[in-house]
Amino acid sequence: MSFQLELSDLPDLVRGAALLGTGGGGDPTIGRTLVAHALRRRGDDGEPATITVLDPDELTEDDFVIPTAMMGAPSVLVERLPSGDEPAAALAALEARLGRRATATMPIECGGINSTIPLLVAAQRGLPVVDADGMGRAFPELQMETFAVYGVNGSPLAMADERGSTAVVDAGADNRRMEWMARGLAVRLGGVAYIAEYAMDGPTVQRTAIPRTLSLALRLGATLREARETHREPTAALREALADTLYRHGEVLFTGKVVDVERHTTEGFTRGAARVQAFDSDAVCRITFQNEFLVATVDDRVVALVPDLITVLHLETGEPITSETLRYGHRVTVFAIATPELMRTPEALATFGPAAFGLDEEFVPVEQIEKPQVTVLS
Amino acid sequence: MSFQLELSDLPDLVRGAALLGTGGGGDPTIGRTLVAHALRRRGDDGEPATITVLDPDELTEDDFVIPTAMMGAPSVLVERLPSGDEPAAALAALEARLGRRATATMPIECGGINSTIPLLVAAQRGLPVVDADGMGRAFPELQMETFAVYGVNGSPLAMADERGSTAVVDAGADNRRMEWMARGLAVRLGGVAYIAEYAMDGPTVQRTAIPRTLSLALRLGATLREARETHREPTAALREALADTLYRHGEVLFTGKVVDVERHTTEGFTRGAARVQAFDSDAVCRITFQNEFLVATVDDRVVALVPDLITVLHLETGEPITSETLRYGHRVTVFAIATPELMRTPEALATFGPAAFGLDEEFVPVEQIEKPQVTVLS
Repeated sequence: MSFQLELSDLPDLVRGAALLGTGGGGDPTIGRTLVAHALRRRGDDGEPATITVLDPDELTEDDFVIPTAMMGAPSVLVERLPSGDEPAAALAALEARLGRRATATMPIECGGINSTIPLLVAAQRGLPVVDADGMGRAFPELQMETFAVYGVNGSPLAMADERGSTAVVDAGADNRRMEWMARGLAVRLGGVAYIAEYAMDGPTVQRTAIPRTLSLALRLGATLREARETHREPTAALREALADTLYRHGEVLFTGKVVDVERHTTEGFTRGAARVQAFDSDAVCRITFQNEFLVATVDDRVVALVPDLITVLHLETGEPITSETLRYGHRVTVFAIATPELMRTPEALATFGPAAFGLDEEFVPVEQIEKPQVTVLS
Repeated sequence: MSFQLELSDLPDLVRGAALLGTGGGGDPTIGRTLVAHALRRRGDDGEPATITVLDPDELTEDDFVIPTAMMGAPSVLVERLPSGDEPAAALAALEARLGRRATATMPIECGGINSTIPLLVAAQRGLPVVDADGMGRAFPELQMETFAVYGVNGSPLAMADERGSTAVVDAGADNRRMEWMARGLAVRLGGVAYIAEYAMDGPTVQRTAIPRTLSLALRLGATLREARETHREPTAALREALADTLYRHGEVLFTGKVVDVERHTTEGFTRGAARVQAFDSDAVCRITFQNEFLVATVDDRVVALVPDLITVLHLETGEPITSETLRYGHRVTVFAIATPELMRTPEALATFGPAAFGLDEEFVPVEQIEKPQVTVLS
């Protein structure tokens, strides 16, 4: 169902987006600030200070949807704030290349800042945002999209930066090469850039996107807030909220204290690993990341694997923690969420399963993995 | 004066282009092979197997000249031969972006492979090539153009590779940033890419280009060949040929044996230095390069400086040697050529004088530098 997104929805939305960001996707607070500013300006201009969030079922063949996003290392984004005009400039550059105006924008990923970038464009341009995305979570690379898995070309991709530079990259049907070229440019532009890519019509959105992930983020964010307000254990509330969605299953993997985080920014990514020590045993949970959390092991046995969602939450508040802000001493719950079936097909796993990240492990759905006997506080 | 370039002109042209390449610009043999192939194909198709080389004075306001070129590390080019379709693909991508077809192409530099790339495009497309360029020699970076110095934007720049990928980069009036973005992409595309940039009308070519440098390359190449055929000392013949051109002055700086070359390929460039030991004294000439030879010193005193042309020739044959092929044991003449006055103005020196290469020395015209007393064999 389509709905109007209001300023007051933003805190829940970005909390839910941080959860679905699985540790990556960039700090959604930055995106929230920009969207709030754009919405207030719409209000000042006498326009309704809301954004139309369009249910994908309402799209038609006449729709021309151009997703917009940020790309780059979350570490850099924090240091180098956007002016706010970049994503709309990228959209305009792609429209000029294609000779056609977008009827709507859409997230390429529903986690982190990229759930908010299309909202910013929508507020600035008066466009609706489609309630869907191409990752159903966050991933670090631009070919890791259900759009790509199911035959949409990311090219041509348009890029813009805060100095007014633009670039249009066209690698034809080779979405990996598009990512490779765009990443090189993004690194040259200071590690962060804003993009428009994967232009498609309404039926193609319906066939390839993960539906209703903006409203899911809103709902999961509200769930975490309400749990805190009612002093309810947050992961129990999350499991309940997930049950009747495409994601179905949520599960606590581990609880403990962060005892070590190694992290470096290289080739436009934030890479590293964190170790969490159990409160009441010697058990150790290790989580590796490339922007997003990719694998969780407990005592060297895999307990969850990309593309299933691995999230790290503050133990008491359930607030999601990013790979960027994870610090020694954090008391955390490691919480996994089953990814939608559209993201577990063989072709989907070939694009963003463990092997796509250089990992040797075969993907096993998180709900089917036998877990070590570790006492968890929940 | 305009003229028809024939297949039989190519050996002289590329020899002259290698000289004007001042050690860089890429191996013109590769370009020559591609142009020869394209000319033969024109002949097979019943077209005249020649290319019209257009005198810049004959251009009008209705002309739309789009220069074409290779960019990247000469070291890489040797390993990774072009298919031959890339430069025309770059031109087509820029024409599509600008919504206008080129009436002619032109070199951005008259040294090395980039004297031949526009000939290739011209033969394939049936376009004339303007007898002029934007460097009057070779330089390693795309903003180092008289076009840029005198107010032409390199952006938008189009790029193509041998796999059919394209990119269009637009950094507005910031030609340095255009170079930075394009270089990042070229590195991602394997270290070499093909470009179209600095689109301009006829009067702008007349105002900003170094005129008649293709015919100069042809003439200097013929001079070296004839000197060899008549057993004449090659640098004497070169000095004579240069006297009534914009370059006016040629001068032997040193003769000796190459005793050391350090060379590495980094960030898309071939960088390093060579040492030449005099035959009959302890004197040492040191030549540093970034693709092109930048500075020559004799016993640590500067004897020639960019943008004046520093060339290294085989002692006996006068055949130019590139920074890429220079080897221990080569017996060489280090020969300098004064650069045209259009390239010695304060604004030109700001763009491609010594400081632009991170060098501390002030530019002094080579003909005004007092040289150490070194015996030279010539």
